[in-house]
Amino acid sequence: MADLVDLPRNDSGIETALGILAQRFGPQFDRGAAMREQHGHTTTWLRNQKPDAVVFPHSTGEVQEIVRICSAHHVPIIPFGTGTSLEGHVNAPAGGVSVDLSQMNRILEVHAQDMDAVIEPGVTRKALNTHLRDTGLFFPVDPGADASLGGMASTRASGTNAVRYGTMRDNVLGLKAVLASGEVLTTGGRARKSSAGYDLTRLFVGAEGTLGLITELTVKLAGIPEAMSAATCSFPTTDAACRAVIMTIQYGLPVARIELLDAMSVHAANAYSKLDLPEQPLLLLEFHGSASSVAEQAETFGEIAAEFGGSGFEMATREEDRLRLWQARHDLYWACLALKPEGAGLSTDVCVPVSRLAEAVVRGQEKAEELGLTAPVAGHVGDGNFHMLPLIDASDPKERAKVDELSAFLAELAISLGGTCTGEHGIGQGKARYLEAELGPAAVTAMAGIKAALDPDNIMNPGKIGLPA
Amino acid sequence: MADLVDLPRNDSGIETALGILAQRFGPQFDRGAAMREQHGHTTTWLRNQKPDAVVFPHSTGEVQEIVRICSAHHVPIIPFGTGTSLEGHVNAPAGGVSVDLSQMNRILEVHAQDMDAVIEPGVTRKALNTHLRDTGLFFPVDPGADASLGGMASTRASGTNAVRYGTMRDNVLGLKAVLASGEVLTTGGRARKSSAGYDLTRLFVGAEGTLGLITELTVKLAGIPEAMSAATCSFPTTDAACRAVIMTIQYGLPVARIELLDAMSVHAANAYSKLDLPEQPLLLLEFHGSASSVAEQAETFGEIAAEFGGSGFEMATREEDRLRLWQARHDLYWACLALKPEGAGLSTDVCVPVSRLAEAVVRGQEKAEELGLTAPVAGHVGDGNFHMLPLIDASDPKERAKVDELSAFLAELAISLGGTCTGEHGIGQGKARYLEAELGPAAVTAMAGIKAALDPDNIMNPGKIGLPA
Repeated sequence: MADLVDLPRNDSGIETALGILAQRFGPQFDRGAAMREQHGHTTTWLRNQKPDAVVFPHSTGEVQEIVRICSAHHVPIIPFGTGTSLEGHVNAPAGGVSVDLSQMNRILEVHAQDMDAVIEPGVTRKALNTHLRDTGLFFPVDPGADASLGGMASTRASGTNAVRYGTMRDNVLGLKAVLASGEVLTTGGRARKSSAGYDLTRLFVGAEGTLGLITELTVKLAGIPEAMSAATCSFPTTDAACRAVIMTIQYGLPVARIELLDAMSVHAANAYSKLDLPEQPLLLLEFHGSASSVAEQAETFGEIAAEFGGSGFEMATREEDRLRLWQARHDLYWACLALKPEGAGLSTDVCVPVSRLAEAVVRGQEKAEELGLTAPVAGHVGDGNFHMLPLIDASDPKERAKVDELSAFLAELAISLGGTCTGEHGIGQGKARYLEAELGPAAVTAMAGIKAALDPDNIMNPGKIGLPA
Repeated sequence: MADLVDLPRNDSGIETALGILAQRFGPQFDRGAAMREQHGHTTTWLRNQKPDAVVFPHSTGEVQEIVRICSAHHVPIIPFGTGTSLEGHVNAPAGGVSVDLSQMNRILEVHAQDMDAVIEPGVTRKALNTHLRDTGLFFPVDPGADASLGGMASTRASGTNAVRYGTMRDNVLGLKAVLASGEVLTTGGRARKSSAGYDLTRLFVGAEGTLGLITELTVKLAGIPEAMSAATCSFPTTDAACRAVIMTIQYGLPVARIELLDAMSVHAANAYSKLDLPEQPLLLLEFHGSASSVAEQAETFGEIAAEFGGSGFEMATREEDRLRLWQARHDLYWACLALKPEGAGLSTDVCVPVSRLAEAVVRGQEKAEELGLTAPVAGHVGDGNFHMLPLIDASDPKERAKVDELSAFLAELAISLGGTCTGEHGIGQGKARYLEAELGPAAVTAMAGIKAALDPDNIMNPGKIGLPA
């Protein structure tokens, strides 16, 4: 965005720290321009603000050393997982050192009976699930990208099956983090619940690396269900689809996934993934459970859908059909980009109470049309979270201004409906201006106070979350 | 306990503030000794440390006035809901003003489609559920006592059905709190999920009133299931019962409740609630879902139980039988107290990974026997959380010392097994000494830093959570 500013740099401190780090970490340390650029923001058209160097620790002890060196010289530290965040979390607006945790990727413990695992932050969700394959367990949070678990925790990520399995907030039992002081903080153990003091686990989940560097996570696992099936159902309007969702959830149907695609998204998916779905609002569902429970859920959903004008309800019980549908959903970002070759997309991320979802989607669509933007919609409708993906020529400032206007419109609309400007992507740099509008000045002051208490010199990922830099 | 200390009092500030409060709040203000004593700790034999006065606000604005008056004169503020907390949370070790929120008991909004409600903190869970009766919805967190929702949030309470519906951590979407500055903090809206900044909601849930006074809560509701049935099943050993629980949860059976009673608890329940259950380790379950799903769950559980030597598996599908069983569970505290008339009970509250539960229970039983204590066990076994209730003559210092020893033994044991000293009661005063052992010094320092950032003069419920007073 045009308004992404550079923050004051501590050049002499950075030079000193880089010298020490280079000597200490040798081949684990890199000042090359390409490496630095790759560790700044690369996933949307937020400007890349590259760090001054990248370091690849292999252990919590090494992270402590890096933090102590940077801390002594007041040098910013930016944690890096896989670089898939969308809001500029890995940018270095004041320069500093990117700490790439991808080589801390060991799965330390799997406790099958307790259904938890202790992992390093660089483990990706697919790597974890591959490791778990023979245990009958899986890690359920699925944001689409094969992100690192440390990064997913830091942005409080979720995705298509949060409606059943929760978000990272719900699936991290405890963690370890290196604080600005270099000390290791433990926020919790492996108990399923605890009332022992402030919930530091939940404080670090979603903190975007601004309070410390996560070096270990204990995550909950879920049992792989006996049966899974997918289903699609078309609706005459977005409103009808949303009403069907509300009824489904009120009815207590434990849907594992329930996604909304607008007609434009369905069109994109048909073209990209060679499907032939009716090009009107669509719900894409997944049911988990015993074979009979899955059948019963599907039948009940079919009855609910019919009440709201749903048509073409189709089950995909065969594994390959189910996977093909969900692959199409996961490829939707690319399918939408293909609607405008040479274009770029910026994913918005508002979340509203589900009763207001249809209104929010329709008003967003109207606004996009008014602005002349092509902006397909896909949403985690069980949670009230949806993404519009305006597609533009990113080199055209006028088009970028339109996207800014749409993004601001949606954020303000969501907030006015009791919702949030970000359901799962985080504030980062891109949504910094909405935080106070959403939660009020007392919340921002409280967050800034917490940040100052844990990181008095503001070296931990400065310039993120909309806190004073 | 013998080691409950009084903290230094600010007598002149207290006198000044009380004078102002008396004038401002008239009949809503009370300095009577009985009222003060009733607002100190009364539920176990932790010593009562009464506040200097009690004030009954009717609105957030009145709470702000009280806080500003107390803040100006450095006077402690202790929030009070129904007084059912077990760890001395409502004691006033440095004197000060008890803010009784029971008259802030309005249900402000019920959003049936969104399955949430906005309430004042004095609403009790039974009052909320009575209000919701005709909506098809209910508030699921059930700690047994008819506690206030503000109090339940503040201790991060849970209870028998957390295994299915989660704890207060999971069921508060957002809240408002009056900070020590007198400002109103909003932590979140009604969106089901959000990635907007630090999770202040989760920070206040479980903060035991030490960061501010909760004046409004937005809570999640659940749909009343179509069918519910209870079941009991006896096991030859605690270990066998725990193994059946592990298998049940791994299998993905969505049990709504799964409780363990040891033989002594079953004996107490038989006597008190006129049941005739076999006096050996017992699992007491509840299944929620559609009629066919409930039947299927029960059947599957029956098969699992049989594998682990379960016997006498019995379903209670009739509403009155189901309620009778759960009434017996809720009355278990009284049933156990009746085992030792004239005695008192102190409920321990450790929580461990479920794979270690049998070991923890058995070692606790052995320790109790070694100490010559009668200490029945009941546990929320799906979460690994169990309570031992040693029954003693509370006026005998030797017996109290034995309970202290058992309590410390269990806390240390739970921590050594990867668990927590408190699953759902909170730290308060009673468990203050275990916090650092559980989470380490960095966590206590971080909590103290957060406390100081939000409440620099330490007027919000001082002397709780084991933070420096």
